[in-house]
Amino acid sequence: MTDPTFSAARERFRSGKLMPRKFLEACLERIEAREPKVRAFVALNIAGARRAADASDKRWKAGKPLSSIDGLPIAIKDIIETEDMPTEFGSPVFKGWKGGRDSACAYALRLAGAVIVGKAVTTEFAGAPPGPTTNPHDPKRTPGGSSSGSAAAVAAGMVPVAIGTQVGGSVLRPASFCGIVGFKPTFGALNRGGVGDQFSQNCLGTLSHSLEDAWAVAHEIAVRVGGDPGFPPFAGGAAPASPRRPDVLAVLETDGWAVAEPAAKKALEAFLRKLSAAGVTLIDRKTSRRVEQLEGAIAGASQLSLGINDWEKLWPFAELDLRAGKGLSDGLRKAIAAGRKMTPDDYIALLKRRDFARDVLMSLAGDVDALITLGSAGPAPLGIHSTGDAVFNMPASMLRNPALSLPLLEAGGLPLGVQLLGYPNQERALSGIAGWVTALGAKGKKKR
Amino acid sequence: MTDPTFSAARERFRSGKLMPRKFLEACLERIEAREPKVRAFVALNIAGARRAADASDKRWKAGKPLSSIDGLPIAIKDIIETEDMPTEFGSPVFKGWKGGRDSACAYALRLAGAVIVGKAVTTEFAGAPPGPTTNPHDPKRTPGGSSSGSAAAVAAGMVPVAIGTQVGGSVLRPASFCGIVGFKPTFGALNRGGVGDQFSQNCLGTLSHSLEDAWAVAHEIAVRVGGDPGFPPFAGGAAPASPRRPDVLAVLETDGWAVAEPAAKKALEAFLRKLSAAGVTLIDRKTSRRVEQLEGAIAGASQLSLGINDWEKLWPFAELDLRAGKGLSDGLRKAIAAGRKMTPDDYIALLKRRDFARDVLMSLAGDVDALITLGSAGPAPLGIHSTGDAVFNMPASMLRNPALSLPLLEAGGLPLGVQLLGYPNQERALSGIAGWVTALGAKGKKKR
Repeated sequence: MTDPTFSAARERFRSGKLMPRKFLEACLERIEAREPKVRAFVALNIAGARRAADASDKRWKAGKPLSSIDGLPIAIKDIIETEDMPTEFGSPVFKGWKGGRDSACAYALRLAGAVIVGKAVTTEFAGAPPGPTTNPHDPKRTPGGSSSGSAAAVAAGMVPVAIGTQVGGSVLRPASFCGIVGFKPTFGALNRGGVGDQFSQNCLGTLSHSLEDAWAVAHEIAVRVGGDPGFPPFAGGAAPASPRRPDVLAVLETDGWAVAEPAAKKALEAFLRKLSAAGVTLIDRKTSRRVEQLEGAIAGASQLSLGINDWEKLWPFAELDLRAGKGLSDGLRKAIAAGRKMTPDDYIALLKRRDFARDVLMSLAGDVDALITLGSAGPAPLGIHSTGDAVFNMPASMLRNPALSLPLLEAGGLPLGVQLLGYPNQERALSGIAGWVTALGAKGKKKR
Repeated sequence: MTDPTFSAARERFRSGKLMPRKFLEACLERIEAREPKVRAFVALNIAGARRAADASDKRWKAGKPLSSIDGLPIAIKDIIETEDMPTEFGSPVFKGWKGGRDSACAYALRLAGAVIVGKAVTTEFAGAPPGPTTNPHDPKRTPGGSSSGSAAAVAAGMVPVAIGTQVGGSVLRPASFCGIVGFKPTFGALNRGGVGDQFSQNCLGTLSHSLEDAWAVAHEIAVRVGGDPGFPPFAGGAAPASPRRPDVLAVLETDGWAVAEPAAKKALEAFLRKLSAAGVTLIDRKTSRRVEQLEGAIAGASQLSLGINDWEKLWPFAELDLRAGKGLSDGLRKAIAAGRKMTPDDYIALLKRRDFARDVLMSLAGDVDALITLGSAGPAPLGIHSTGDAVFNMPASMLRNPALSLPLLEAGGLPLGVQLLGYPNQERALSGIAGWVTALGAKGKKKR
């Protein structure tokens, strides 16, 4: 594939040089070729996808596409309900389960003319125990998780975009491991209706090859079904803002720096020098009291997030444990048991710590354009028994702010992400910075 | 029934003078006698309830009840999933539908030893079109809605407590019409998992004969499954605070005063004189600039709430409309169509107005103990084709603060509620005031 983005294909739909059905067939060929090794999908609805693509062909021929993503082949993480395929949540307990309805995002995507190709592998209930998916860059390595299939399907060129979800590191980390763009919007910005878990850090995200595709999909969902009830819908615009050089970026170490691989640190440090050379002022915990405060507030983000999750597993997971305990992983059952030992006061204390960290983040908003760190502690590790460490992704989950993992680094010949974090509901500003940073990253970089 | 509260029965369980099974049988007799006219239930699981009550008997005999509500016969609004009975959401589209799981509250209630007797009638998806339930005080009148069956079952003495939900006026209004206590906690304080709608004003509430029962049920749910993910669970305590005379109450007119029935106004005014005589300082829009501001901020609460709801119907209701449109009421389909015409910006504007009203409410917190108004615009109106006007209840829904309707007034020989509104997550303070106000209301009042 020369240009794997949907935005490029859309230009060709517009000019009549390509049609959605033909584009879909190229995706299906790619699935046939790569799926046996990558194992990104739990279910495919090829007949349904072809019908949807044919309908899209007609609309494009008539010059009346339903939206900017009409004809987009897309995969949906199998933690999210689709009317036409089972939703199994990565759990044997839900083998073949059908909810009989489309989730909010699936419904919105169909209304916008997108072509839902299949359900992508998730870890068990978007938690720890992984599925069979391998990393398209090296089948001996994990694609990351929990949106394992979503990231792998996109990275392998099977679909240009996939929907994932993130509670801890489930969009940003697989994006980093798979060498693609991972976008986690502000908490609440995309409607989670019909998603199997409703954790207070969970949000929908996109995996794609470009910012343009990520923004288009988020926008088309938001205008059709909004965000979570009570939250402002994604308002980042139909397309990313024009690239804009940030004046000041705060470099975050997070808890991850202590465990990051040397090659990953070196790659980020080289990139930071590039940013500095291009005129960006970089501040960090050593040079800024407020960044130091933020580092302090997000220290222990993983434990905090897991504690919050344990309590929030009291329903539906503790209820499910009563009925189908043996079908759940030991890890999940342990987390449920931990949640049962918590009190409302324990949970309230964790929420207060989380709120405090967000307040500290907001103290930077006046004069710091965005925050930057690694997308993951290193490139995808060997083995598919674990989906890798989410330590670099927990801060954005805990802060519930928007974040992107951009495929701009390499370590040991494998892709690695640069992570940018923005301010709540300021996705548009983040996109301008991300566009500029991406262009800078592309300069002088050898094509993968 | 001499004392219809569960807390009185519990004392007798403790002393061995009564056992839960026998208490349940009295409820079942009452159901047999009154249900043909009241029509509060969509489904009953009498065998299951008897088994649960027998198990409770054993625990009480062994001196080891699971909680303060062990053995409590309870009804659950049919908008809430129960594993053992269908959940039909008041809609023919879901006739006989079974989700196969317990909602968070049903799960928590069972863990606490409560005896789930049946599913109580709801209006269609807790919206407008009513079910067949009649008011236990007069079968020609509505019990109110949308928690119609929950309120009627309690008022008729069929169960001591029922679970309802409120988005607009669905707990407080039926409580007022049926002459019982309706309690709507702070938004998010009781876990809504497994409730058919996730509107941003929706919360679980209780209907009962006493504050004690309301508090016990809320507490036992909150310690077992918490509140909504991300929200502090109900922390009002296992029992209401000791009765405490408020120093200052703000009298709210709301949009309701203009349409309230003269007899209802007179009843409230007489009650306010009683409060005043007992030493409570009353302030209102004429005497307090801040109350005037709050009246301004909650003006149009009904339209605001309906607008927010319309947008939030985009999922699951607009999706359901695609698949089962003819099974939905015309009113619901109109609301869905209105939601489809809204933009994210329209919704954001409504959220901002709602947030502003909450800020104004909080400006009173320093020196106003609670707010007081009518529970409804009058007693239950004639006819069961409509569940009555929720105009007095929309403010507490919009403000997402805790509120109680207390059965302390009468108009035209029918019950009428006094409504007390508190501050978010300050249920404990509200309960002390409510206890004192209830005692005052009982003084010199003829027994119904």
